[in-house]
Amino acid sequence: METPEQDAAHMARAIELAGRGHGTTSPNPVVGCVVLDAAGQVAGEGFHAYAGGPHAEIVALAQAGERARGGTAYVTLEPCDHTGRTGPCSRALLDAGIARVVIAVADPNPEAAGGAARLRAHGVPVTNGVLAGAAERGNEEWLTYARLGRSHVTWKFAATLDGRSAAEDGTSQWITSPEARADVHRMRAAADAIVAGIGTVLADDPSLTARAPGAGRDEGDGPARDGRTPLRVVIDTEGRTPQHARVLDDRAPTLVAVADDARTGLKADLLRLPRHEDGLDLRALLRELAAREVVGAFLEGGPTLAGSFVGQGLADRVLAYVAPALLGSGSAALGAAGVGTIGEIHRLTFDDFSLIGPDLRLIARPVHPLGREQ
Amino acid sequence: METPEQDAAHMARAIELAGRGHGTTSPNPVVGCVVLDAAGQVAGEGFHAYAGGPHAEIVALAQAGERARGGTAYVTLEPCDHTGRTGPCSRALLDAGIARVVIAVADPNPEAAGGAARLRAHGVPVTNGVLAGAAERGNEEWLTYARLGRSHVTWKFAATLDGRSAAEDGTSQWITSPEARADVHRMRAAADAIVAGIGTVLADDPSLTARAPGAGRDEGDGPARDGRTPLRVVIDTEGRTPQHARVLDDRAPTLVAVADDARTGLKADLLRLPRHEDGLDLRALLRELAAREVVGAFLEGGPTLAGSFVGQGLADRVLAYVAPALLGSGSAALGAAGVGTIGEIHRLTFDDFSLIGPDLRLIARPVHPLGREQ
Ligand SMILES: NC(=O)c1ccc[n+]([C@@H]2O[C@H](COP(=O)([O-])OP(=O)(O)OC[C@H]3O[C@@H](n4cnc5c(N)ncnc54)[C@H](OP(=O)(O)O)[C@@H]3O)[C@@H](O)[C@H]2O)c1
Ligand SMILES: NC(=O)c1ccc[n+]([C@@H]2O[C@H](COP(=O)([O-])OP(=O)(O)OC[C@H]3O[C@@H](n4cnc5c(N)ncnc54)[C@H](OP(=O)(O)O)[C@@H]3O)[C@@H](O)[C@H]2O)c1
Repeated sequence: METPEQDAAHMARAIELAGRGHGTTSPNPVVGCVVLDAAGQVAGEGFHAYAGGPHAEIVALAQAGERARGGTAYVTLEPCDHTGRTGPCSRALLDAGIARVVIAVADPNPEAAGGAARLRAHGVPVTNGVLAGAAERGNEEWLTYARLGRSHVTWKFAATLDGRSAAEDGTSQWITSPEARADVHRMRAAADAIVAGIGTVLADDPSLTARAPGAGRDEGDGPARDGRTPLRVVIDTEGRTPQHARVLDDRAPTLVAVADDARTGLKADLLRLPRHEDGLDLRALLRELAAREVVGAFLEGGPTLAGSFVGQGLADRVLAYVAPALLGSGSAALGAAGVGTIGEIHRLTFDDFSLIGPDLRLIARPVHPLGREQ
Repeated sequence: METPEQDAAHMARAIELAGRGHGTTSPNPVVGCVVLDAAGQVAGEGFHAYAGGPHAEIVALAQAGERARGGTAYVTLEPCDHTGRTGPCSRALLDAGIARVVIAVADPNPEAAGGAARLRAHGVPVTNGVLAGAAERGNEEWLTYARLGRSHVTWKFAATLDGRSAAEDGTSQWITSPEARADVHRMRAAADAIVAGIGTVLADDPSLTARAPGAGRDEGDGPARDGRTPLRVVIDTEGRTPQHARVLDDRAPTLVAVADDARTGLKADLLRLPRHEDGLDLRALLRELAAREVVGAFLEGGPTLAGSFVGQGLADRVLAYVAPALLGSGSAALGAAGVGTIGEIHRLTFDDFSLIGPDLRLIARPVHPLGREQ
C-alpha cells in the first residue's frame, strides 16, 4: 500500500488535473483522477472536461487498461454511484479490478453519493479526506451549489486604492487597465450567469456578455466550452429595465428578476421573486438560478446590490481589481452592507493576489467555512 | 576596464549595501560603495551607516587598503567634494590611487557636488548614471529633500478592501492585524517626523510615537539609530490642540503648526505658517520641516489632511495596509483630493505588495517622476 506521502502526492496531481476542467464542466463538478498499477506506477490520468463528457475515472481507467488491475485510484471527488449520462464510476472501478480507492471529498449530492459505500461493500478499501481542503477549494463553486442548493456568487469590482469606482461627477472610464478588463472577461466567461442591478443597467446600459466566450480559466487544455453563453440576470424589483436595453438584445439569454407583485409591461423572460428588505429576496434568486443549473454566478454590481449580497453573507468570493490611483471622492465600490459598528465587519481572507498589468487583482473569501454561511 | 555588465553587477551590490543605512542616515543620503582592485576583484565594501559616521567610500577604501591602487570604485551617489564632518571623498579616492570611478546618481546638493569634476580634473575617468533608476529609488526620500528643498512625504493609511477606515458609528479597532500595526511602527521609526491633523488628535488622542525606536527598515546590520525620536507634528490651523493631549507629552519633541494669525493660548512649540485653501500652506510646512532636517515625514492622516496632501501632489509615497474585510459604510480612508472628474484622477504605480499577517501591504508612488511634482 502507498504511504501517506505518496497518497498526498498523487492526490495533488489529481487536483491539478481536475483544474483543467475549470469553466467548462458546469453544472458538473471538476474532477481529476490518477490510476496506479499494482506496482505503484502511474498507469492512467484523467479529468472531467465538459458536462456530458466522460468522467475523470473513466478517462484514467481507459488509459490504464489492463494495468489498472490490482492498482490504486485517486479521485478528487467520491466516485458516482448512479447511472447518469455515463455509467456509475464505482462500477467501472470494480470492473477494472482496482484494489484501493483514495478520495479527497465526499459527494454531497444524494443522487451521486454512495460510490464509496458500494466499493467497500465489494471489499475495496477506501481512504477518505486526502487533501480535502485543496480539493474543496478547487471545487468551491460546485460544492456551494451542491451543499446549499443555490448558486455560488463571485462579486467582482474594480476600484481605486481608496475604494472608489467613479469620480464625483459619475465618470469612471477607465479606472482599471485594458489588461484588467480582459481578465474580467476571462473570469466572466467561466461563469454560468452574470448578474447586475437595475441601477447599473439604467446608468451604464451594459451588455453583460462575456466577450471572450469559450475561454475558461485554464485555457489550452480541455476542449472548448460547449458554446454555452452565460445567462444574463437583471435584479429589477419593479421591472424598470428599458425595453431597448442592451441586456435584452439577442446576444445571450436574459432573465429579468422582478417582484412577484410587480406591475410591469416588460417583454422579457421574467423571474418572479418574493420581496425582501432592500428589494428582492436574493436567497430565493440564487435557489431559482441553481434550479436552472447556474452553478457559478458572477455579480457585477453595482454597489447597492453588492452591499445586499455581502450583507447577507451571499458573496462567496470577492474578485477585486484595484487600480494604483486615488480619487478621494465619488461613489464607493461597496454600498451599505449591514455594518453599523466595527464588530459587525465582514471578515475575509486573501486567497490570491497578483499584478494584472498595472493593477492588482485580489481574490478573497469570507472567513466562515466554505458553503457554511450563517 | 570592466564591461557594462560588470559595472551593473557591482553597482547593484553597492545599492544593496546602501540600503543597509535606511532609516539611520538622516539627514544624510544612503550611500553604498564597492572597490575593486586593479585585477577586477572586490577589495572593499562599505556603506554610510549613520549621520556623522564615515562615508561609504571611506569605509570601502579602508577595507581595500593598498589593493585599491589602480582599481575601480562604484558609488551609488556622486562622491562629495566638500570637507564636512568627514573629509571630501573625491580626495580620498584620488589619494588611494583609484583609477576609475562609476557613479549611479549625481549629487543634487550644491555644497557636496563637484566630486566627479575633481576626479576628472585629476585624470580619473568617471562613468555616470549606471543603475541610476534603482539608486534613485533607494534614495527616494533624500533626493526629494535635496532637489525640492522640502521633506519627502509617506502617507500611510489602513483600510478595508472597500477603502474604509472606520465603521458607521466611528469605531475602527482593529481593522488591520497586530502584524500590520507592528509593521507601521517599524516604518514610522525610520521617519524623521510623524504628522497628523487636528481632527485625528481631537478624535483619537494618539501619542504619535514610534514604539519601536531604533528599528530601521533594515534591521540587524547597521549600528543602532542614534537615539533620535521622530518629531511629532500636528497640523492645527487655530491651535486647538488640547493642552493635555498625548501628543504634547514629553516622550518626543512636538511641533504644532498653526496659522500665522491664529489666536491661541496653546503652550507648545508653535510653527507659524501662512493659510492656504483648506487650512495651512502645506508646501510651506514641508519647507520648514526640511529646514529642521526632516528628510522623511510620515503622514498618519486623517482623511481630510491626507486629501490635501494628495490633491496638491505632496504625497510622495503611499503606504497602504489593506485588511481582508468589507464595511460598506463608514468613513473613507481618503477625503476630497481635488478630483472632480475621472481625468483628474491621481495615478500611481505599485512598487511593492506583500502580505503582512493576513493583511496586504501596498507601496505606491505617483506616476510623475520622482521629486518632479507639478
Ligand atoms: N466599478 C464597478 O465594478 C461597477 C460595477 C457595476 C456598476 N458600477 C456602477 O454602479 C452604479 C449603479 O449602482 P447602483 O448601486 O446605483 O445600482 P445597482 O446596485 O446596480 O442596483 C441597485 C438596485 O437593484 C434593485 N434591487 C433589487 N433587489 C435588491 C436587493 N435585494 N438589494 C439591493 N438592490 C436590489 C433595487 O432597485 P429598486 O429600487 O427598483 O428595488 C436597487 O436600487 C453605476 O454608476 C455603475 O457605473 C460599478
Ligand atoms: N485609518 C487610518 O489610517 C487613520 C489614520 C489617522 C486618522 N484616522 C481617522 O481620521 C479621523 C480624523 O480625520 P479628519 O479627516 O477628521 O481630520 P484630520 O485629517 O486629522 O485633520 C483635518 C484638519 O486639519 C486641519 N488642517 C490644517 N491645514 C490643513 C490642510 N491644508 N488641509 C487639510 N486639513 C488641514 C483642519 O483643521 P482646521 O479646521 O482647524 O483648519 C482640518 O479640519 C479620525 O476618526 C481618525 O480615527 C484614520
